[in-house]
Amino acid sequence: MDNRPLGIFDSGIGGLTVVRALHELMPHERLIYLGDTARVPYGNKSADTIIRYSREISNFLLSKDVKGIVVACNTASAYALDTLKAELQVPVFGVIEPGVSAALAATRNNRVGIIGTIGTIKSEAYQSALKKQQPELEIIAHATPLLVPLIEEDWLSHSATRAILEEYLWQFRLMKIDTLVLACTHYPLLKPTLTNLLGHNIELVDSAESCARFVRDALAKTNQLSDANDESSIEVYLTDMPVHFKKVGERFLRKKLHKVDLVSVDGLSSTQRR
Amino acid sequence: MDNRPLGIFDSGIGGLTVVRALHELMPHERLIYLGDTARVPYGNKSADTIIRYSREISNFLLSKDVKGIVVACNTASAYALDTLKAELQVPVFGVIEPGVSAALAATRNNRVGIIGTIGTIKSEAYQSALKKQQPELEIIAHATPLLVPLIEEDWLSHSATRAILEEYLWQFRLMKIDTLVLACTHYPLLKPTLTNLLGHNIELVDSAESCARFVRDALAKTNQLSDANDESSIEVYLTDMPVHFKKVGERFLRKKLHKVDLVSVDGLSSTQRR
Repeated sequence: MDNRPLGIFDSGIGGLTVVRALHELMPHERLIYLGDTARVPYGNKSADTIIRYSREISNFLLSKDVKGIVVACNTASAYALDTLKAELQVPVFGVIEPGVSAALAATRNNRVGIIGTIGTIKSEAYQSALKKQQPELEIIAHATPLLVPLIEEDWLSHSATRAILEEYLWQFRLMKIDTLVLACTHYPLLKPTLTNLLGHNIELVDSAESCARFVRDALAKTNQLSDANDESSIEVYLTDMPVHFKKVGERFLRKKLHKVDLVSVDGLSSTQRR
Repeated sequence: MDNRPLGIFDSGIGGLTVVRALHELMPHERLIYLGDTARVPYGNKSADTIIRYSREISNFLLSKDVKGIVVACNTASAYALDTLKAELQVPVFGVIEPGVSAALAATRNNRVGIIGTIGTIKSEAYQSALKKQQPELEIIAHATPLLVPLIEEDWLSHSATRAILEEYLWQFRLMKIDTLVLACTHYPLLKPTLTNLLGHNIELVDSAESCARFVRDALAKTNQLSDANDESSIEVYLTDMPVHFKKVGERFLRKKLHKVDLVSVDGLSSTQRR
């Protein structure tokens, strides 16, 4: 057993849906989250920039003595995961592999849709991982950059949100997909509206939930789950304090946020590893 | 006369509408633009962070020997303009003062609306500048964070855009404003749709155009206009290369982009002033 905390990071607040899923599945694990809100979003940044940011944040989390790092950001998982896995001494988990496995387990007709930020879709990380495991899969991937700001505005079932989703989704209907991968950690909040629009015949793959299950199984296998008995703490660090953070963050986490600490970007890049 | 270039900066690509307006008004001025695309958007960042970024970028522009700096970003104008004016040896222009003057000149019933990013509206920079000059003004200000991603998606007259604008604009109709300040450099691209929704009785104040006129008048007054005869160059620097930049940038600039250079954020912060 290993009672050190788990580190989780995202470009912003979206990764809090992964924190929520981890906490619901493993309430005894201490979780330390860093949201890089000073430099959000990563979705429109270059690969080099994203790798540099991810390395800085991982060093910050390692300075907190984490036993593993969850890259709770699809863009960073797409561009930086291999680098982090090669460089770090602790296990590193992304959101893509779990989402890909869940999609392959869910589809019956081998037609899978993917929605995500421009960066995630353009990286083709999901597309190539899916194709690698199931070459005959038909995949339709579409960047849906309006969904993050709609979710942060809390317009989850607004008529404009429905109009935008209709525009984004018609191609998926035409292709008769039976599985839609939500390849962005913000998107789980749109699940009720998506189900309402798509019906129950299209399975939604929630990358936060599939990631949490993947991490739990991996920690169990290496005997690294915590044996604490009490419900554990969630520590949240941000590189900048967004307006309305408490309200929006609690919506993502589905829990009260008791303590949020700021860490400067300069502080991040000068953090020494333990 | 002063034939040195003018420096212009914004958090991202929106300030290119100011570059366009400056170029249309003063085709003989050399223009050097820096878009801080690696750290966009500024709208949800803290004042300290925005001041730090603005200082770094100004030093970069000064290293190019500019005769003046245009802060073509409403958020940076709101938070960083006074600091830059106090610290720099060249004239510094923002987008707020020109927009405020244009709004006061336009309104007949003294009811003025303002739309902008969360940061710009929350800063109350427009509201307090308007009130200071015209205490009896009725002002209604509303943050409209969905408009930037809609514009960058090029959904300028999409039904979803119209639905979102309807939601954002009903309060302005109710208040019977006769002037609406577009307090974000992206918004000029929405002018046709806004006019279509609001009718011709509500005057739209385009902060890019009013800023360009303000800069021209100021340079004329100090005899600092260029006396070059040929159409001058526009140099564009970005801190990160966004996907589809060329297409989106040319839409903002209404001109072909011939050369775009990358400058790293680290490069910015280490630039020495001349």
